[in-house]
Amino acid sequence: MSAQQWVYFFGGGGADGTRDQKALLGGKGANLAEMTRIGVPVPPGFTITTEACRHYMKHRDVPAGLLDEVNANLAKMEQHTGRTFGGGSSPLLVSVRSGAAVSMPGMMDTILNLGLNDETVEALADESSNPRFAYDSYRRFVHMYGDVVLNIKGDRFEHLLERMKDGRGVHLDTELTADDLRTLVRQFKELVLSETGKEFPADPHEQLWGAIRAVFNSWETPRARAYRRINNIADDLGTGVNVMAMVFGNLGNDSGTGVAFTRNPSTGTHEFFGEFLVNAQGEDVVAGVRDPQPIEEMAKAFPPAYAELLAAAERLEKHYREMQDLEFTVERGKLYLLQTRTGKRTANAAVRIAVEMVNEEVISREEAVLRVEPDQLNQLLHPMIDPNAELDVLTAGLPAAPGAASGHAVFNPEEAAERGHAGEAIILVRRETSPEDFEGMVASRAVLTARGGMTSHAAVVARGMGKCCVVGASEIKIDEAYGRFTVDDRIVKHDDWITLDGATGRVIWGKVPTVEPELGDHFRTLMGWADEIRRLSVRANADNPNDAAKARHFGAAGIGLCRTEHMFFEEGRIDAVREMILSETVEGRRKALAKLLPMQREDFEGIFRAMDGLPVTIRLLDPPLHEFLPVGSAEIKSLAKKMGVDAARLRQQVENHREANPMLGHRGVRLGITIPEITIMQARAIFEAAVNVSREGVVPIPEIMVPLVGTVEELRHQRKLIEETANKVLREAGVQIEYLIGTMIELPRAALTADRIAAEADFFSFGTNDLTQTTLGLSRDDAGSFLPHYIDHGILPGDPFQSLDQEGVGQLVEIGTRKGRVSRPSLKVGVCGEHGGDPRSINFFHRTGLDYVSCSPYRVPIARLAAAHAAIAGTRSATSVPAEKPVPIEVVAVA
Amino acid sequence: MSAQQWVYFFGGGGADGTRDQKALLGGKGANLAEMTRIGVPVPPGFTITTEACRHYMKHRDVPAGLLDEVNANLAKMEQHTGRTFGGGSSPLLVSVRSGAAVSMPGMMDTILNLGLNDETVEALADESSNPRFAYDSYRRFVHMYGDVVLNIKGDRFEHLLERMKDGRGVHLDTELTADDLRTLVRQFKELVLSETGKEFPADPHEQLWGAIRAVFNSWETPRARAYRRINNIADDLGTGVNVMAMVFGNLGNDSGTGVAFTRNPSTGTHEFFGEFLVNAQGEDVVAGVRDPQPIEEMAKAFPPAYAELLAAAERLEKHYREMQDLEFTVERGKLYLLQTRTGKRTANAAVRIAVEMVNEEVISREEAVLRVEPDQLNQLLHPMIDPNAELDVLTAGLPAAPGAASGHAVFNPEEAAERGHAGEAIILVRRETSPEDFEGMVASRAVLTARGGMTSHAAVVARGMGKCCVVGASEIKIDEAYGRFTVDDRIVKHDDWITLDGATGRVIWGKVPTVEPELGDHFRTLMGWADEIRRLSVRANADNPNDAAKARHFGAAGIGLCRTEHMFFEEGRIDAVREMILSETVEGRRKALAKLLPMQREDFEGIFRAMDGLPVTIRLLDPPLHEFLPVGSAEIKSLAKKMGVDAARLRQQVENHREANPMLGHRGVRLGITIPEITIMQARAIFEAAVNVSREGVVPIPEIMVPLVGTVEELRHQRKLIEETANKVLREAGVQIEYLIGTMIELPRAALTADRIAAEADFFSFGTNDLTQTTLGLSRDDAGSFLPHYIDHGILPGDPFQSLDQEGVGQLVEIGTRKGRVSRPSLKVGVCGEHGGDPRSINFFHRTGLDYVSCSPYRVPIARLAAAHAAIAGTRSATSVPAEKPVPIEVVAVA
Repeated sequence: MSAQQWVYFFGGGGADGTRDQKALLGGKGANLAEMTRIGVPVPPGFTITTEACRHYMKHRDVPAGLLDEVNANLAKMEQHTGRTFGGGSSPLLVSVRSGAAVSMPGMMDTILNLGLNDETVEALADESSNPRFAYDSYRRFVHMYGDVVLNIKGDRFEHLLERMKDGRGVHLDTELTADDLRTLVRQFKELVLSETGKEFPADPHEQLWGAIRAVFNSWETPRARAYRRINNIADDLGTGVNVMAMVFGNLGNDSGTGVAFTRNPSTGTHEFFGEFLVNAQGEDVVAGVRDPQPIEEMAKAFPPAYAELLAAAERLEKHYREMQDLEFTVERGKLYLLQTRTGKRTANAAVRIAVEMVNEEVISREEAVLRVEPDQLNQLLHPMIDPNAELDVLTAGLPAAPGAASGHAVFNPEEAAERGHAGEAIILVRRETSPEDFEGMVASRAVLTARGGMTSHAAVVARGMGKCCVVGASEIKIDEAYGRFTVDDRIVKHDDWITLDGATGRVIWGKVPTVEPELGDHFRTLMGWADEIRRLSVRANADNPNDAAKARHFGAAGIGLCRTEHMFFEEGRIDAVREMILSETVEGRRKALAKLLPMQREDFEGIFRAMDGLPVTIRLLDPPLHEFLPVGSAEIKSLAKKMGVDAARLRQQVENHREANPMLGHRGVRLGITIPEITIMQARAIFEAAVNVSREGVVPIPEIMVPLVGTVEELRHQRKLIEETANKVLREAGVQIEYLIGTMIELPRAALTADRIAAEADFFSFGTNDLTQTTLGLSRDDAGSFLPHYIDHGILPGDPFQSLDQEGVGQLVEIGTRKGRVSRPSLKVGVCGEHGGDPRSINFFHRTGLDYVSCSPYRVPIARLAAAHAAIAGTRSATSVPAEKPVPIEVVAVA
Repeated sequence: MSAQQWVYFFGGGGADGTRDQKALLGGKGANLAEMTRIGVPVPPGFTITTEACRHYMKHRDVPAGLLDEVNANLAKMEQHTGRTFGGGSSPLLVSVRSGAAVSMPGMMDTILNLGLNDETVEALADESSNPRFAYDSYRRFVHMYGDVVLNIKGDRFEHLLERMKDGRGVHLDTELTADDLRTLVRQFKELVLSETGKEFPADPHEQLWGAIRAVFNSWETPRARAYRRINNIADDLGTGVNVMAMVFGNLGNDSGTGVAFTRNPSTGTHEFFGEFLVNAQGEDVVAGVRDPQPIEEMAKAFPPAYAELLAAAERLEKHYREMQDLEFTVERGKLYLLQTRTGKRTANAAVRIAVEMVNEEVISREEAVLRVEPDQLNQLLHPMIDPNAELDVLTAGLPAAPGAASGHAVFNPEEAAERGHAGEAIILVRRETSPEDFEGMVASRAVLTARGGMTSHAAVVARGMGKCCVVGASEIKIDEAYGRFTVDDRIVKHDDWITLDGATGRVIWGKVPTVEPELGDHFRTLMGWADEIRRLSVRANADNPNDAAKARHFGAAGIGLCRTEHMFFEEGRIDAVREMILSETVEGRRKALAKLLPMQREDFEGIFRAMDGLPVTIRLLDPPLHEFLPVGSAEIKSLAKKMGVDAARLRQQVENHREANPMLGHRGVRLGITIPEITIMQARAIFEAAVNVSREGVVPIPEIMVPLVGTVEELRHQRKLIEETANKVLREAGVQIEYLIGTMIELPRAALTADRIAAEADFFSFGTNDLTQTTLGLSRDDAGSFLPHYIDHGILPGDPFQSLDQEGVGQLVEIGTRKGRVSRPSLKVGVCGEHGGDPRSINFFHRTGLDYVSCSPYRVPIARLAAAHAAIAGTRSATSVPAEKPVPIEVVAVA
């Protein structure tokens, strides 16, 4: 026997392991040991360590010594149960389950009833006086083992079962007799022989080792690997194997099985919650063949076992200081717990449970804050598909912006704008969107695109508006000419109803009911605690008074990014914008800009009012001018007519504005420098608006932000124009307004020369979208053709537009912040890219010492919570060794 | 009098200043002081310091004390000359000239004869017994002063002079009488009164102060400012003012004036060289009214003065250890030197003089190397427009690639390819070029584009081929449909002869003779010295055996960049390339690639042979695939027919490959990862070629370079494919080939994570073109719309694609090099962007510790020389204080 202990026993009130050994024993194994230790009734068994799995992965063989240890532990189980593995009148049957430190899909399913063969099944029949039970257990075992260990497709077994039922003229499995089942076992074993060329293993030891190896191998299934990659779980953790004595809920009406939660996982209410089935084995509950009964009914069916279950549940929740999800079996009136784990729950429940556990003095406020995953809040902030609705799912794309909406499919943005504004429920369907589709997007309930990623134009704009959006639904083929799209052979015509589920990316046929979320007291309490803990301030990206109000409602401390270009696309403005772009004299430009001035001023007034007393960061015009120009021949002709110019000449002008790489072209501050009239008009609109609202008693705090700066000279040039304009406006009005002038840091050069740029900047705001594009040389509009391949093949850990590339882009954020503060210690530093709403990125921004993050209004609560998480993580890693190990948090999704 | 000395006197064999005080006295002033000190005859005078100019710029007024000092120095001049400023029978007249530390265009011209007024002119007439001379001097003075100090347009004076000559019926100024000139002076003064509203200043002191202020003001003319910005000269140096007693070469046939060089500035021959005019003032030489005589003739005209001049010239060259350019005047037989300075010279002369001065033991080899500016060599390496040819210049663009060529204007690249290959002289004229034009460019003598900058596609490709190229000739309007272009109202039709001058950017009508350069012994000697001194190795960018041979001829130590994509565009290959791109299965791609393999192999064989024993860095396929696809409808139809597929379907496929920002799209290593078959085919071609040539006794040293790497995983992925392929090919052949695998560093992320990337890289090559594009967020194809504005307005110091942005991009080069070597000390580091051939950038690469630079073959000698300059500068700055101050080098252009 080796010096290393590969196997940990639990049973008879004692256990080798404890709950702190999750890494070694897996979550399931550690909890079985812990339950046994504290006296909860658990069938005896043992756990093979993850260490053994790692050895197996490395050497493609189980470690020397494991065989002896397994045998020794089997002997202990025999001793505790008074049964014999592989023979005798009381055969010992076992279940075999995988169990890693983190639960993950793709791992091996449970194998029940292992140890049965043609001899032991007879002993079991005799012992239970129930041959039907014995053969039912046997056929289940052969089926599961054949499927999971021997890789025979499950439906081959199903097929034989169905044929048997047909032959007998029955509908339910339970209607088959012991003899039927015996025949079925024979047929199953023949299937195994013909499929594998080998007899089904009769030796229980051979069965056991086959199962153990199958668990080890399941660690490396493609699905498990993919899950680990997506969730950043190390590939070399390995899984444990849990072997436990079988107990039977299907021995008769004095037996049963069920699952229970210590609190309601859907609402969070503090009530015992669950379901059970009389005379059934675990899988029957899941299979849904019979309707289980509510757990309260168990009080009548098995009063002592129920009382014991209640007590165990209460004890486990107190012990783990967390809501538990239990599996149990009652065998002839006696209760056994088969598993306990942290219970999954909805976002609503998570919030309520966390808050109530603080009130019950079970956990601290910090712990409560950590118990809710920031991204979970998404569920609370948007309408959802009614969970009870029947869905006809056409296809799925990327869940770009959460929420759910139904509407008429419309393929033309003008039509969408018109009908949407008229109050119709519209879903805009496009191959991809461009800024010209903006009005159509505003007026639609939701947006669906066939192309583009999570940070495509449609995705970013929709998220900003809090509008449900599914992008990159690549299976849909849009035929814009005919006004329809197809998915395989199904056709969705113009005006047909469809429904989008922004939480999952599903595209659903027809109209589906949705449910509205409500933010209750528990939510407000938890967010209050988060706000006390966090250091990072949270602002919102909002381009209009509506969004600004929403941002404020969600707790934003200001606006971190107000894009002025969207305003340019609005009805009645775009003509003036185009006139400005296409006029060939300064005078002509000034005239066109003068038309825009009052409209821009009005926009800013509304935003200042909504954000009274809070800072509003306004970014000067950013996109390349050709985005505002017409594209198609018809549009050009119509504009030429409107402008009274020659269409050919106009087409030439439009052509001249075309760029090879618009992302790296004539945009951002480059516009403000070559056409200073634009900067002056925008600055004037901002300060005139500030003056006007200040006369109403509103306190405007404008922070003017210059985009795409790469060298300090650019910022110096713009700062001078802005200050001159401010001085002029404020002097004329005789009003004092506090304001700041700063810049986006969105080019590598800006970050690298931040010390020089800071000399002219009151604040920096990292534009991590563009900074990611330039640092990685990756156009987010074009990345679709290779980024998924990169992520699938592990070349990139994930989409760098969703979660900040800390190793690369993160260095520039760090360099820019550090250098900027060296030359200007008072420098305010924030981030306004999409990453400002991503919890993992927020953690990085906290560690890097930023002052604030800014994100779409709907993500503000998420960012507030994530900032609190980051602050707690920072404190914990700052103190040496915590007195008590932190409770591990499992990421849980909606059930 | 202030404690500070504002004025430095020279005269009578002594001087306050020395030649080392160029910063304080300006170049002219320091040399006047030095000449006086060493006994060369110079009229007495004084220099007002640049310090005074700086004071003037800051306070808009001359410093207190300057007035007194000027008067005191005037008194000294009076004493030395025995003349009186502003009166008496022997009036003292002076010249006033600007003189900064670095000479620059746009500064104030000379004012001669200052001190004349209606009284002193009479005294001068009496004293010289030559009233015509006196009034001729007077009218010249009023004209110069009116123009330069009073800002009256010079042609107003010219006009009066012409009218006078017409009235007198004469042709030459010299034919006017004293009376005519007196009348003219009166008319000039009336002009001044009517233009300025003030009388022409009669007081010589007022005249002098006006001139001094005019010199100070001329420091800030737009032209001087622009020159300083372009040449990186600090704006706050200021200029000196030189005031010197007039001597007159126009007093009669015993007087004269001239210029001379101590060596021939055109050929470099060691011979006294120059021109002189009897009875003339300095400006007459320049004006070219009379033909000057060769300097040797002076031996007959003024034997003693000539002997004295020869002696002074020899003395000055020895003293300054540099070829001198002298100005002198002979007044009634007596010689005066008015100026000495380092003589400008052609590149040929510069090389010869430097080498011969070493042979004469005047200077060291290091100094000789420093005496030739690397960029000057351009003149020696390309054919030039015959300097004697008459030119009909149509317009000018940017001089993108040097050389000169005449040919038929052709607007269609296919036609250019066909006729060019058939031996016709063709100049390809395009709005802009794309990779599809490659064959047409190869076959043409020169390339002209209407759009694009110095690093546009046309410019880069042409430079690489050493082919004359003019880009961005924005005045030409190309009408491709009609096959012609226009400049204003002139039309150049298809097939008309035009000539391009790549040295200046001129586009010339018709066929113009050119002269071929020759690289002589002096050149080889100098380059040999440079090679001994430099540390940086110099490689060349070459894509074919021809260019490789050229590179080797020019002294390249290997190929630093062999682009493989140009090979893809060749006749007979592009179809296979397109088939590969458009096939939708791996199998289809492999089949198409199999057709390309033998062709690629052949390319590499040729290059390996040409570079026998030297390393060849081969970059795997880099450009986005859509660059290889057809664009127009007709082209798509024709390809569809050839491929036997549906045209609509093909158009859809082509459309699918379109990208919003191709620069940041699916290219570089991203192709090799998503379509590994390409990498495998290219690696196979490389190693099979290496095996084949090694059997001929050739030593191939392939260095395989993966482009656009951003993360180490990408390189690891490609390295594995390349190594597997290499192992397979070499094992089968039973041949050993040394090879390296490395990567371009052309994304900010690559530089920032260079420590990780170096784990998989044997070498780095900085692709500073793309690194500049991404770091600055600047598409070089689109920068034309704002970059010129940026440079004109001082927002960028220059075109960052021409000379490396050391402050920004330079940081990444430094970081990448340092981090790369931390994790792999043996890492070879080079640069293969356009900057590899730019002297200023080469200096930076030397300082940063790179191993080599790579540039186009024609720039290899330039890079070798620049690398030597950098090494010398490095040694000098490394030692504490040099024993002797280095001789300052003036940048000189071709005369």
